[in-house]
Amino acid sequence: MADQMPPLDKNFLQKGHHVFLRNLSVDCVIFGFHENQLKVLLLKWNQGPWCLPGGFVKKNESLQDSAVRTLRERTALKNIFLQQFHAFGNPKREKGKALNKMLKETWLQDRFVTIGYYALVEYSKVKPRPDLFSDECKWWRIESVPTLLYDHREILNKALEALRLHLYNHPTGYNLLPEKFTMPELQKLYETILAKPIDRRNFQKKILSLKILEKLKERKTGGAHKAPFLYRFNVAKYKKVLKEGWAAGF
Amino acid sequence: MADQMPPLDKNFLQKGHHVFLRNLSVDCVIFGFHENQLKVLLLKWNQGPWCLPGGFVKKNESLQDSAVRTLRERTALKNIFLQQFHAFGNPKREKGKALNKMLKETWLQDRFVTIGYYALVEYSKVKPRPDLFSDECKWWRIESVPTLLYDHREILNKALEALRLHLYNHPTGYNLLPEKFTMPELQKLYETILAKPIDRRNFQKKILSLKILEKLKERKTGGAHKAPFLYRFNVAKYKKVLKEGWAAGF
Repeated sequence: MADQMPPLDKNFLQKGHHVFLRNLSVDCVIFGFHENQLKVLLLKWNQGPWCLPGGFVKKNESLQDSAVRTLRERTALKNIFLQQFHAFGNPKREKGKALNKMLKETWLQDRFVTIGYYALVEYSKVKPRPDLFSDECKWWRIESVPTLLYDHREILNKALEALRLHLYNHPTGYNLLPEKFTMPELQKLYETILAKPIDRRNFQKKILSLKILEKLKERKTGGAHKAPFLYRFNVAKYKKVLKEGWAAGF
Repeated sequence: MADQMPPLDKNFLQKGHHVFLRNLSVDCVIFGFHENQLKVLLLKWNQGPWCLPGGFVKKNESLQDSAVRTLRERTALKNIFLQQFHAFGNPKREKGKALNKMLKETWLQDRFVTIGYYALVEYSKVKPRPDLFSDECKWWRIESVPTLLYDHREILNKALEALRLHLYNHPTGYNLLPEKFTMPELQKLYETILAKPIDRRNFQKKILSLKILEKLKERKTGGAHKAPFLYRFNVAKYKKVLKEGWAAGF
């Protein structure tokens, strides 16, 4: 199928540069959030190391389109909004590649600059599966990520930085939390992504000052003696702030 | 000199791809601030349009190094800290290039993805001068920027966005203001970059809450009846916040 990545066969090795730009790749860092856990989606090369799902840029394709296509082809994830965050251009970033005999005298042995994209998804709602080149496609807890190919750990770290900066400047939680949620649930989302505890009063004060939340009359049912109030996002305001950023506070 | 960009001669046109990566370029958006004006540094191609100072990536060079070298070679600016902000990869971004006969059947007629870098400098302190390919190298007020080559206007706009986002999240002013400055001077810097007025009390409250300023006992001399107090940055705190970002307020 034209839609599929060319198989890693002789044709792709010898003639891939007729289809793809030379020296340029994309890598996708897909963060998953579910029940207070932050994970990252990794692929395992057939009998090889774990890595980020990456691919190449077709000659007449935008970077964004190539990232979306790469993600779809390699992990089966669709309709994911990918955010570009950094280009990685250290000439020594693909350490060890020169040792790979299969790539010798092909366009793939050259140096590649890679453009990083990231996304944050509710991981119980997506169904990743590995492509032909991969043995596995799996969510890993951030704290337990194994040794990764080339500079992929550095790319992951930079994506985490970008995710956290975004969290500080934009509302987060829509599509990650249930429609109605409690203040502790929203705080837990922030704490999970930031990987640190946040003062409860401080958090509540800041979040409420942004005016993106609607406090409902309902309380969370079941369990505790004093059940916490439920909130939901005011989607119109949420989207406005998402576009403009709220650090724009002056 | 090995340090210089190869002249735009037959050798560069025919053999540049032996020296540089294919399909990849860098462009530098240099903002200048001086006396409450925000400007951008542009080059004018010999008998051609105005553009951002851009260049190519040597085969064994990092993206960052190629941006720094490009800026030096093309505008004579040295020791400028350049911040990568976005990769531009629309396959149609270099509209009109196909019409340039000189580039026909050279590596330069191919599509280029360009990596954008920006910097903010005190423009009275740097002395730009054009390279061999350019008639002029000049500061333009943001509001008066002429029609630019290809998608350079879009690159400029995106850099301005990155500059403003940075302003919201990090301290700005060191190296742009005199060592001792007044609150109105600092506010004016923010207003100039953001291109909008800011409420005076609100600004003062927010800036002071960041604890990066030291209020001096001196007042600004000369002129007004009630001279404003002078401030200076606490450089240690400034650098700490610069590194961590202050939106990290939770």
